Amino acid sequence: MLWGSRFEKDLDENAFDFSSSLNIDYRLFEYDIKVSKAHVKMLAQTKIISDDDSKIIIDGLQKIQSEWDSQKWNPLNEKFEDIHSAIESKLKEFIGETAGKLHTGRSRNDLVATSFRMLIKDYSKNLIVLIKIFQKTLMKISEENIYTVIPGYTHLQRAQPISLAFHLLAYVEMMERDKKRFQFVFSEADVMPLGSGALAGSSLPLNRNITKDELGFNSISNNALDAVSDRDFVIDFANACSVTMIHLSRLCEEIILWSGKEFNFLKLSDQFTTGSSLMPQKKNPDIAELIRGKSAKVLGNLTTLNTLMKGLPLSYNRDMQEDKEPAFNSYDILLTSLKLISEMINTADFNKERFIEELKNDSMVATDIVDWIVTKNIPFREAHKIVGELVKFSEIEKKPIQKLSVQELKLINEIFDESVLSIMNFENALSIKKTEGSPNPIFVKQLIQNWKFTLS
Amino acid sequence: MLWGSRFEKDLDENAFDFSSSLNIDYRLFEYDIKVSKAHVKMLAQTKIISDDDSKIIIDGLQKIQSEWDSQKWNPLNEKFEDIHSAIESKLKEFIGETAGKLHTGRSRNDLVATSFRMLIKDYSKNLIVLIKIFQKTLMKISEENIYTVIPGYTHLQRAQPISLAFHLLAYVEMMERDKKRFQFVFSEADVMPLGSGALAGSSLPLNRNITKDELGFNSISNNALDAVSDRDFVIDFANACSVTMIHLSRLCEEIILWSGKEFNFLKLSDQFTTGSSLMPQKKNPDIAELIRGKSAKVLGNLTTLNTLMKGLPLSYNRDMQEDKEPAFNSYDILLTSLKLISEMINTADFNKERFIEELKNDSMVATDIVDWIVTKNIPFREAHKIVGELVKFSEIEKKPIQKLSVQELKLINEIFDESVLSIMNFENALSIKKTEGSPNPIFVKQLIQNWKFTLS
Amino acid sequence: MLWGSRFEKDLDENAFDFSSSLNIDYRLFEYDIKVSKAHVKMLAQTKIISDDDSKIIIDGLQKIQSEWDSQKWNPLNEKFEDIHSAIESKLKEFIGETAGKLHTGRSRNDLVATSFRMLIKDYSKNLIVLIKIFQKTLMKISEENIYTVIPGYTHLQRAQPISLAFHLLAYVEMMERDKKRFQFVFSEADVMPLGSGALAGSSLPLNRNITKDELGFNSISNNALDAVSDRDFVIDFANACSVTMIHLSRLCEEIILWSGKEFNFLKLSDQFTTGSSLMPQKKNPDIAELIRGKSAKVLGNLTTLNTLMKGLPLSYNRDMQEDKEPAFNSYDILLTSLKLISEMINTADFNKERFIEELKNDSMVATDIVDWIVTKNIPFREAHKIVGELVKFSEIEKKPIQKLSVQELKLINEIFDESVLSIMNFENALSIKKTEGSPNPIFVKQLIQNWKFTLS
Amino acid sequence: MLWGSRFEKDLDENAFDFSSSLNIDYRLFEYDIKVSKAHVKMLAQTKIISDDDSKIIIDGLQKIQSEWDSQKWNPLNEKFEDIHSAIESKLKEFIGETAGKLHTGRSRNDLVATSFRMLIKDYSKNLIVLIKIFQKTLMKISEENIYTVIPGYTHLQRAQPISLAFHLLAYVEMMERDKKRFQFVFSEADVMPLGSGALAGSSLPLNRNITKDELGFNSISNNALDAVSDRDFVIDFANACSVTMIHLSRLCEEIILWSGKEFNFLKLSDQFTTGSSLMPQKKNPDIAELIRGKSAKVLGNLTTLNTLMKGLPLSYNRDMQEDKEPAFNSYDILLTSLKLISEMINTADFNKERFIEELKNDSMVATDIVDWIVTKNIPFREAHKIVGELVKFSEIEKKPIQKLSVQELKLINEIFDESVLSIMNFENALSIKKTEGSPNPIFVKQLIQNWKFTLS
Repeated sequence: MLWGSRFEKDLDENAFDFSSSLNIDYRLFEYDIKVSKAHVKMLAQTKIISDDDSKIIIDGLQKIQSEWDSQKWNPLNEKFEDIHSAIESKLKEFIGETAGKLHTGRSRNDLVATSFRMLIKDYSKNLIVLIKIFQKTLMKISEENIYTVIPGYTHLQRAQPISLAFHLLAYVEMMERDKKRFQFVFSEADVMPLGSGALAGSSLPLNRNITKDELGFNSISNNALDAVSDRDFVIDFANACSVTMIHLSRLCEEIILWSGKEFNFLKLSDQFTTGSSLMPQKKNPDIAELIRGKSAKVLGNLTTLNTLMKGLPLSYNRDMQEDKEPAFNSYDILLTSLKLISEMINTADFNKERFIEELKNDSMVATDIVDWIVTKNIPFREAHKIVGELVKFSEIEKKPIQKLSVQELKLINEIFDESVLSIMNFENALSIKKTEGSPNPIFVKQLIQNWKFTLS
Repeated sequence: MLWGSRFEKDLDENAFDFSSSLNIDYRLFEYDIKVSKAHVKMLAQTKIISDDDSKIIIDGLQKIQSEWDSQKWNPLNEKFEDIHSAIESKLKEFIGETAGKLHTGRSRNDLVATSFRMLIKDYSKNLIVLIKIFQKTLMKISEENIYTVIPGYTHLQRAQPISLAFHLLAYVEMMERDKKRFQFVFSEADVMPLGSGALAGSSLPLNRNITKDELGFNSISNNALDAVSDRDFVIDFANACSVTMIHLSRLCEEIILWSGKEFNFLKLSDQFTTGSSLMPQKKNPDIAELIRGKSAKVLGNLTTLNTLMKGLPLSYNRDMQEDKEPAFNSYDILLTSLKLISEMINTADFNKERFIEELKNDSMVATDIVDWIVTKNIPFREAHKIVGELVKFSEIEKKPIQKLSVQELKLINEIFDESVLSIMNFENALSIKKTEGSPNPIFVKQLIQNWKFTLS
Repeated sequence: MLWGSRFEKDLDENAFDFSSSLNIDYRLFEYDIKVSKAHVKMLAQTKIISDDDSKIIIDGLQKIQSEWDSQKWNPLNEKFEDIHSAIESKLKEFIGETAGKLHTGRSRNDLVATSFRMLIKDYSKNLIVLIKIFQKTLMKISEENIYTVIPGYTHLQRAQPISLAFHLLAYVEMMERDKKRFQFVFSEADVMPLGSGALAGSSLPLNRNITKDELGFNSISNNALDAVSDRDFVIDFANACSVTMIHLSRLCEEIILWSGKEFNFLKLSDQFTTGSSLMPQKKNPDIAELIRGKSAKVLGNLTTLNTLMKGLPLSYNRDMQEDKEPAFNSYDILLTSLKLISEMINTADFNKERFIEELKNDSMVATDIVDWIVTKNIPFREAHKIVGELVKFSEIEKKPIQKLSVQELKLINEIFDESVLSIMNFENALSIKKTEGSPNPIFVKQLIQNWKFTLS
Repeated sequence: MLWGSRFEKDLDENAFDFSSSLNIDYRLFEYDIKVSKAHVKMLAQTKIISDDDSKIIIDGLQKIQSEWDSQKWNPLNEKFEDIHSAIESKLKEFIGETAGKLHTGRSRNDLVATSFRMLIKDYSKNLIVLIKIFQKTLMKISEENIYTVIPGYTHLQRAQPISLAFHLLAYVEMMERDKKRFQFVFSEADVMPLGSGALAGSSLPLNRNITKDELGFNSISNNALDAVSDRDFVIDFANACSVTMIHLSRLCEEIILWSGKEFNFLKLSDQFTTGSSLMPQKKNPDIAELIRGKSAKVLGNLTTLNTLMKGLPLSYNRDMQEDKEPAFNSYDILLTSLKLISEMINTADFNKERFIEELKNDSMVATDIVDWIVTKNIPFREAHKIVGELVKFSEIEKKPIQKLSVQELKLINEIFDESVLSIMNFENALSIKKTEGSPNPIFVKQLIQNWKFTLS
């Protein structure tokens, strides 16, 4: 225990287990070692401890790292309050009383905050890398499907023809925003609390800029009280994970729909589906469902963190120990989800011919006919009404709009002439679009070029 | 794998790990064994399998149970999709192909739902027992503190004198409601889905009433589709845990306040406090803080479960695999919290003399003076105003209300006379109360008698 | 203001607006009037006020009720702290100083808690009535569709044939559980706090049993401190609303799927769909989407309430004023959702022929073939494997299982003979089921009879 | 209605009310007008409509704005689907059929998204301004309290002496991060979706850069499908509001504690407290409690939004209509909370002398004594242990550490000498600190100078 010299009774055993965070915060191991080394170096440079002591401690820490790396030492097999106690205890075992100088001028409060910020910085970077890989996968499939026409939906009702490329590029946009959010998290986490002590700094002449440079932080915290009380960076991280998972859950919802018999647009690789213990014909999109399901957990983790911090007085309260598990769990889920969804989409077999027949018999070109009428100087609302009647007529006649003859069209409104027929040909459905950001292959190709440049 | 005969590629390894629930649902082990035994017995009784096969399977299951109990076999050391696959795989190892008859007429969907319901029933019962123990602890301290006067607070401002017994009995009431909530959960979980197959029952002549009786369920489910789609009992359980944790978090907030220097009303045992790694004089109420903090997690678990189920089409979707971890986690936290808070409050040292001096100098009797005036046929609002002036006077004079003389009182209002003095004596603060449910020792004693009877 | 006699400055205007709850709690109007009348009657019966005063106050309250009913008086047009201040202020206007006697022996804390509990009791009753109506609607359609075969899904993949009746009856089960949950809420809310004062009861000899009987409560609260601190009944209500909304959101998800072109199983009435401002051919299931969307709000309301109460010390804290808006909002959403979903499903046009052709060409009977093999004393796992091969064969041959000849079947396994053909005829898909709770029309009819009896 | 030409039955009245968002989205009024004007200008510039029509429409829109400003027209008194329908309907009333040209080449989907983004940009700016004002208020009080020594707490236990300035500056840091978060939201919202149509752009040659410049957006969206499906900016806004409210809730928790009799460190102005309807002596910190309570709502709003979006397929689904109410509500609460907390803290009366006597008798200097020992080349852990014994000694002797004589100190350990006495003098408690970010007045003054520069 890092404390306890004046306590008469030991902590109740159940209480000890309840309060130990070792099984969670062992992940901070490497960060504690780094922080400890940097701290000790600084203590020597500022003459607070001797160079010799510094060397002994750093060697000891290095040895702990080696035993950890070679799995000779696993603190999880022993009982410690947390990973920081475990390390200091091990250090004492290795170097004796000099170990007691490691904690000079620091508190667990600033130690934990510093280690945790370093981890969040790394986690954010890792996730950005994986998001980029996922973007590239989406790009690759998009590039092959600039002309693959599929229905675009609103309200899950077929709305207008779009391309598969255009659809997947929507997710490239989402992922780009997600990367920005993690970059924001990174920069927010990039402030070093070390040297804040428990809440009020130290009366030892610590030089915080030395440790800052050593640990690669961008700046040092301005206020020790805030530095140990602040968990904004954790909440921001959890929020970034949650938004990204919401994006993945939306794609997974679509994968689930598309791989059902009704949509029948996608065949997932056997590697990402499972069968049924009872029904031999089943092929279930389990991984997509699990990603969608686990997004609920990531969202719940954010709720946990917010509820945890709400209404806590300054500075550190032990409640805050519970900040790690939700953050780690969100990271794990997102990390694996990104890996799996990249691979799942990459190995999926899109049924490119699926919608062609149906699109020929569909009324999805209605909107473009409205636009065509508008160019004849008819107000939009009037044009909308005309095409509404056309839709009704086509329903009564049980004949898709696209199959109506000019004569039939003229029955509905005199404005129609031969020139409307090219609009009604679904082959032109993409190229007819004129706006930037539309599924027109010209714009889509340009966008893909831009992305290639950005993501390279 | 319980499925897979027609799949050409194996599940991706990352995907397998992502989708495996073994490290969570191993807790269903004993329930799977029980369900499997009952199922096989029924299969034999209905002549779907032979008595011999039944005996072989049951013996095999028994052997698995033994190896589990003696820790000879730990499925967590191997790779399985879930505990159910693990058991069936082990069974095959023990008894060969006959193991293949175990899954006759059942699906993982109804198997999981049945096992999970049995666990929730047990968990609910366990929690009810622990809540009762906590109530008894509160009762014991209450009984010793019927006359220990403390300030009652509203808005965290001192309001009226109450007793410590009265304060703690409020938590006995909360816990009683919590027990009722878990009883409700129990009865909702007490419906057997087994025999519902994947979603549509079975074309084999299973007799569900036999398994129901064998497994001790109250009734069988009416609709197979609902039976495998339903997770209400999990949400209800998570809600019951959450409400109970909110109650504990409120008490912990008070313990934290009371054990600070400002309130100084409580000294926690060393067993339930920790020291500081930096500040040697500290004694921190960590366990109380952790219970308050972990209540955020239990609350987040409920959010997870609700978000998980929202908008899912029938019947089973793999998302629902994520229902177990939040439920188990909430149970673990609540179980340990109940144990610890009982022990923590039992070993706490209340500073019974703490408020006596202050109460003598306090204006908390103001409300009773209002009531006294009201008995003189003065409208309550007028009485409230008179005492308001009295409070202002006492503030200006820097003299507590209770120290004012009759002469001074008469300066404020003619209505006052000697008889008000007994009201203003804080020693009478409790006994002056006339209503059922008040801190008057007469009522408190009676209530304690009733509780003793109920809880015995 | 009900307080304030000793305050020198008025509440800041922004602060007043921020803290006023009138625009929310005006819904408690009728409950405050009822509580006030009962309280005053009791005050007279216990001689705390005179019969004459009692009569004057009750008449005044009656007059306020009349002016409210006839919309002559609308407190929302004025500035009040809350509805209770508004009523007392109006009473003073009508009857003068005697109004000041109304608040004798009570506090806003117990007044609010009592009124709120009465409202929750009424709300729970109302919702139970509407759930019952919805159940009856589901029953009606079920009765007409006992033989309407549709695909049953797991993982949103076609699994086994079921009937529409069987599918809708799953929701009748869910609603039955929801009713039980609201009954639980009702009984939990059915405890009267009145007479608890601010937190410590009263020194006036109030008779709480008189008011209890007058207000129709089942019992009185045991502990005044708990009585004013407790909001469990609100959380339980919010949870009950949330679970019910989750059920509705699941049905709405299905309605949305079913009404799309791919599923094409349902046509919603124009009354419950909207068109598009841009795309004339669209018919969107907006109401179903909104119910699904608003379920997120009801779920968020529960999170709000739990977060609100977590960690609050006893007794009343002003935070708790925020308990009403989420509860009222959840009620409003659920109430209207129940009305709309009943009507929406009642006016929907099911495309009963939709799946017949497809079912003939489907492999959904595979599970029943497994069961058929099992009856030949082949272990289930082996049977599962055989049918797995059969499915693979049928995929290669591009011929649905049901179209395979006995010769072809024998190619896969010798066990098949003519008698399997009746199993493979999808017309028998329902009647082949043997278990209670299955879609077999015999069981479904029986269940409908039971429901008719229960719901009548 | 903006749609509906081919529908035979009107929307059910209850359904209409349920689906109307007018009572919420009327706040988008001015943004719709601006977007509409810019859109029409562009339509004329690109020759899609004539200059004359453009002028007529813009004049019509201007007239609507005027009637709104002068409150001649209030759409809330009529029945409309939303504010956009209301405006178009009013426009038709004013200018006749030409109004039908307004919606040319746009959809409600891109119209709503564009208007909503403009509002979020404005809201973010407004909140940044208010946060700045709050920071300045905190700065002002800090400047006056650089030497006001108060206890710093960890675990709500007195830990080390700090200054009030130092404490309040922690909140200045939090607010600075909150501003950054809103700046991030602003830049994320600063992308224009207009021209994305319903989901696929337009076949009319719209020039999106013209509208972008006119409306002051930074860029246009790259993908129409994403542009109408994306609500990240709303979630980010809700998260930013939630984190800021958590910060305010923490300060409010402290205000509530500080204004109670036990802490007695703060007297709130009458303007921000209320009294009790029953207890005349009470002065309750209601506004602080309400801010803490309403933070639960803001947190719940975030949960609502996340749950809402989770698992929705692309593109627009009507569920997404429910995105506005939570965002608006969070804004309203945060806006008012910021105003009130600034004013509340500004008018509060800090009891600066409160802790002086107690600090003299306190052991909070223990940590600094540890540091003092460390400078004697004793390992930190050893020093911690020595001071631990000192604390125990002081508890047994019932004499605060600071009152111990050198002789007594030497009894505990030989290392102590006269020079430790200056450390133990609480007057030096602040100036003894040596680290940047500590409460040492030198650093605090410097920090205040920096803030003054930054915030000016």
